[in-house]
Amino acid sequence: MSKPFYSRKLHILILLTIIFSLSACFSDKNGKIKLLHFSSDISSDATPFVLKELLDKENEGVSKITFEKGEYHFYPDKGLEKFCYISNHNDVVIKTAFPLSQMKGLTIDGQGATFVFHGKMIPFLIDGSTNIAIKNLSIDWEVPFHSEALIVANDLENKTFDLKIAKEYPYEIRNGQLYFIKESYEHNLGQAILYDPERRAIAYNTEDYTPLTIYNNLPNKNTKTAVAYKYKVDSHDPVQNRIAREYALRVEELEPGLVRVYNHRKKIPPVGKVLVCKGEQHANRLAPAIRITNTNGFNAKNVKVHHAGGMGLIAENSSDLILDRFDVTPSRGRMVSTTADATHFVGCRGRIELKKCIFKNQLDDATNVHGTYQEVVDVIDEFTIGVRMGHYQQQGFVIGKPKDKVGLVRLKNSFFPYDSLTIKSVQKLNSRYQKITFNESLPASLESGDLIENLSAYPEMLLVEDCIISNNRARGLLLSTPNETVIRNNFFSTEMEALLIPVESGHWFESGNGANISIIDNTFQDCNHSGYNRGVIRFVTDDDNHNIAFNNINIKGNTFNHFDNLILEVANTDGLVFQENVITNSKTFPKRHNQKSAFRLKSSRNIQFKKNTYEGDAETVVEVEGNMQKVEFN
Amino acid sequence: MSKPFYSRKLHILILLTIIFSLSACFSDKNGKIKLLHFSSDISSDATPFVLKELLDKENEGVSKITFEKGEYHFYPDKGLEKFCYISNHNDVVIKTAFPLSQMKGLTIDGQGATFVFHGKMIPFLIDGSTNIAIKNLSIDWEVPFHSEALIVANDLENKTFDLKIAKEYPYEIRNGQLYFIKESYEHNLGQAILYDPERRAIAYNTEDYTPLTIYNNLPNKNTKTAVAYKYKVDSHDPVQNRIAREYALRVEELEPGLVRVYNHRKKIPPVGKVLVCKGEQHANRLAPAIRITNTNGFNAKNVKVHHAGGMGLIAENSSDLILDRFDVTPSRGRMVSTTADATHFVGCRGRIELKKCIFKNQLDDATNVHGTYQEVVDVIDEFTIGVRMGHYQQQGFVIGKPKDKVGLVRLKNSFFPYDSLTIKSVQKLNSRYQKITFNESLPASLESGDLIENLSAYPEMLLVEDCIISNNRARGLLLSTPNETVIRNNFFSTEMEALLIPVESGHWFESGNGANISIIDNTFQDCNHSGYNRGVIRFVTDDDNHNIAFNNINIKGNTFNHFDNLILEVANTDGLVFQENVITNSKTFPKRHNQKSAFRLKSSRNIQFKKNTYEGDAETVVEVEGNMQKVEFN
Repeated sequence: MSKPFYSRKLHILILLTIIFSLSACFSDKNGKIKLLHFSSDISSDATPFVLKELLDKENEGVSKITFEKGEYHFYPDKGLEKFCYISNHNDVVIKTAFPLSQMKGLTIDGQGATFVFHGKMIPFLIDGSTNIAIKNLSIDWEVPFHSEALIVANDLENKTFDLKIAKEYPYEIRNGQLYFIKESYEHNLGQAILYDPERRAIAYNTEDYTPLTIYNNLPNKNTKTAVAYKYKVDSHDPVQNRIAREYALRVEELEPGLVRVYNHRKKIPPVGKVLVCKGEQHANRLAPAIRITNTNGFNAKNVKVHHAGGMGLIAENSSDLILDRFDVTPSRGRMVSTTADATHFVGCRGRIELKKCIFKNQLDDATNVHGTYQEVVDVIDEFTIGVRMGHYQQQGFVIGKPKDKVGLVRLKNSFFPYDSLTIKSVQKLNSRYQKITFNESLPASLESGDLIENLSAYPEMLLVEDCIISNNRARGLLLSTPNETVIRNNFFSTEMEALLIPVESGHWFESGNGANISIIDNTFQDCNHSGYNRGVIRFVTDDDNHNIAFNNINIKGNTFNHFDNLILEVANTDGLVFQENVITNSKTFPKRHNQKSAFRLKSSRNIQFKKNTYEGDAETVVEVEGNMQKVEFN
Repeated sequence: MSKPFYSRKLHILILLTIIFSLSACFSDKNGKIKLLHFSSDISSDATPFVLKELLDKENEGVSKITFEKGEYHFYPDKGLEKFCYISNHNDVVIKTAFPLSQMKGLTIDGQGATFVFHGKMIPFLIDGSTNIAIKNLSIDWEVPFHSEALIVANDLENKTFDLKIAKEYPYEIRNGQLYFIKESYEHNLGQAILYDPERRAIAYNTEDYTPLTIYNNLPNKNTKTAVAYKYKVDSHDPVQNRIAREYALRVEELEPGLVRVYNHRKKIPPVGKVLVCKGEQHANRLAPAIRITNTNGFNAKNVKVHHAGGMGLIAENSSDLILDRFDVTPSRGRMVSTTADATHFVGCRGRIELKKCIFKNQLDDATNVHGTYQEVVDVIDEFTIGVRMGHYQQQGFVIGKPKDKVGLVRLKNSFFPYDSLTIKSVQKLNSRYQKITFNESLPASLESGDLIENLSAYPEMLLVEDCIISNNRARGLLLSTPNETVIRNNFFSTEMEALLIPVESGHWFESGNGANISIIDNTFQDCNHSGYNRGVIRFVTDDDNHNIAFNNINIKGNTFNHFDNLILEVANTDGLVFQENVITNSKTFPKRHNQKSAFRLKSSRNIQFKKNTYEGDAETVVEVEGNMQKVEFN
């Protein structure tokens, strides 16, 4: 073998690696590496350099990783690939640059660096770790997973509108359908919504215009039943969902960068608004910025997420997650930050804190905290059941771990468990079907179709404090937290409810009953402006009955500056005090709904109003539905 | 907790499990389970019962599994899910009923049972095991992954044809495109081919008519370069491949079960032929019947594969694979058996034997034996290179293991390695990009763009004997086997070459130079009848030069009953003896090509013809191209 000589034709990785290695490692007295530092020499593609060190067994036990301030690009080509089941996302084959697996006590300090990702990547993939901190860095994508286009003309008679598409959003038209071309990705006009470019927020009344009606049903639906299935089939699953439908819109290019959209069946969007789209749900949640599983202790401080093709942060089966100045905001003049929720917590325990965060312009909730309902489909032996996951984007989620207390729920009878068992083991056979063995024998009352929820896997305490939540699609906070929740001194301006507290069992199967919730000193500015007649704060269950789902709610000292009438919807609640709040008539937008009351109550008891100021102009302040006792507004 | 009582509403799994358990296990003297027997009680969905036993740690060490004779259905719903990178297939999330992982010395004897699978499953997923045998069983699918339709009318003037679609192939038309609806799967008119229902074989001259021209190129191809990529992009990858193309065909339903196809640009298919289609390549190889990786010793005996959504058997990085009466044949009156190769071996070692097998009506080769070329893209340090996989359906393949000898190849200079190294370790970062560290330092001559191949990972001996290979799309045997190959007493009637021995580096990156090949006493009946002007036996390289790729070939005692002129193509070969063969003029089909010679030789030496009988009517028997020396036919 001849002596090594490195051809100039080869990439100059060697040289960079040497420079990097010399400056990278600082050891403790035992020779164990404690600190890794990356210089901006690696910025043209930092992925292989960061990965090399993170995967190097020599670096086990590293406690701090720092970056020289600068802009670092991360490409997927040399990234570590993982197949991930991600709750409320697609299950994806994805690359990462920061696989933080089985780590203990690691801080990544960007020192002000910006990390720009390319294509299908999850920047931080954190699993099975303890006490991980990320701070002082920004996460962005060079090419976003959504697209934006200005509506420059419309024709109300012929029901068309014209989109001006900037060259940052390359597109093409195939068989009359518009596709936006991204880095190894593309999307169509699915899940579109209007932004108001002046307010840089979701447009008033966008629900009249959007989403675009991209599908028509086919006249013959026999194909839906053409294949005989032995077991239950999820009609939302993309394989089933495409049956008996075809694309409805037709798009035509008038000139490069200018396209006309035909066949939209809702109102034709107005000129001057920005149409934002991200493609269809089943394909558009693939690259969250931070993904955390089975991790105890996570802290993000001064982290900016400018974009993600999915959520800003999705945590599952983890505990003690503190976000302090975790800002989700758009960059580069984009209307949109993340294409799904800013943050999302499934089956998480301990403390969850969101403090001094900004959650702006994301295309879904600021946060969503919940467990999962799973359906009992088999009794396998005296101790073991087979359960089925409900929603295709929650597939693969494992409901709990040994010793967890699992509630058996029959929602038509009660929102609370009729019995409970403790987990001995979970065998995940596939993403839909798992076997759960309990320490105790199954109760006689157990029936197929009952749900289970993990009673041990709700946060002990959720704190949302001093946050700004605005300009985003969907809700502010979507909470299924039965233990303790404090929502204090936040600003909300959301197109749907600011606070939604549901029992949801019909679509996403997100479990949990809201209880012990304090909502204090917040400002709610013109929420629900996209068109829904819903309470700014809303307690609601999928099951329409008189059972109690929610209790011990304290709403105090808040200001509701609201253009419309409806402030609060309460259902299935026992114990709610609404006190010392101020409701003003903001007149920001025209009133949208012929809604006579400001407060709508049903199937509830022990609801009190004390020392509030009402400056709105609803005909009736408090409306009570059904045979519920009348409640006075004070 | 109350006493257990099992609601009748629940599936009756419990009872069945008890029956099953009582009859299932026979132990040896040490109480170790040696035999599992399944009765036909489990036949309505055998998946959970088989899995329960296979995943039970108590059953470790089981040496034989038997089934009562009968028809067993296997559904995916309760199957074990795996994410698999499969060579020459899609990378899939798939369910299996037989996860044979880390097993030693296990025989599965179906005792004549038929296993009918449903939807996206890999029946047998064998990994990291030793001495596995499967025998006496049939594998089929209830709903096939391909579709068949009879051409009942055509209009040559308006260039349309009409398909009669039986109700076993439910379909619908969306936006003018035909989709066949399967069990949690669907496909379009991609990769269509004509079958002749009388011969139950690929139709004569089908290449004139098929594949259907499902795409048009878009006039503006700027979108192909609209996104700037830092690294090389695979234009065949489905994400890239869909850019700048749209669907060309338009399909209209005339009445239920009868559709008209417009816009086909090849010749309009004739009435009476059966159009078979399986959808587009990037999506249609997902469910092979038997998948084997990292396994030493596999034996299939008297196994029938009636169908698979992919290959009948795909083996990677395994050794000593013996198929004896492994029959791939269609069932239920279908034209098609497996939708891809009957068998396929990548990076396999030791002996590969195919004996007394039948490979009929599959939609690709009877077998393909090869290694992989991987491209050197980085030199990372003195001992380490970064390599890139070429074809998107070979992603994830790991080229070898420690101590394997890897050749460094520069095909423009030589088909043989210019140097070699031994593997110390392979780090698979992602499915495209892996780092390989060698025991020796890299040679100075190494250049970016060079290829590597694993010289240790070719079969020591390949035997194909007493097999019937017919009625299928594509080749009989596609061989890249440099050690020793014996092809004896087989019958071939294939629409492309019976035997293709290539050096292929332009598309699939399948490595290996053919050498030491004996082709003895076979019958070649009317191969290449679909329309290509190719040798029944063909030696060919992608690189057009005069270097030697193949050597020591013996073609002896064979009968070529052939309708057309071209029998043998030889290029880049040193040492080929063609002796005691008989060539007849079969007149089965009209001659297709204006091909003047029966034997076409180029860039070769030491080619001899001895004691052959030529009864064909080619103008010239042996044609020599370029400046190669003339060769006499004898």
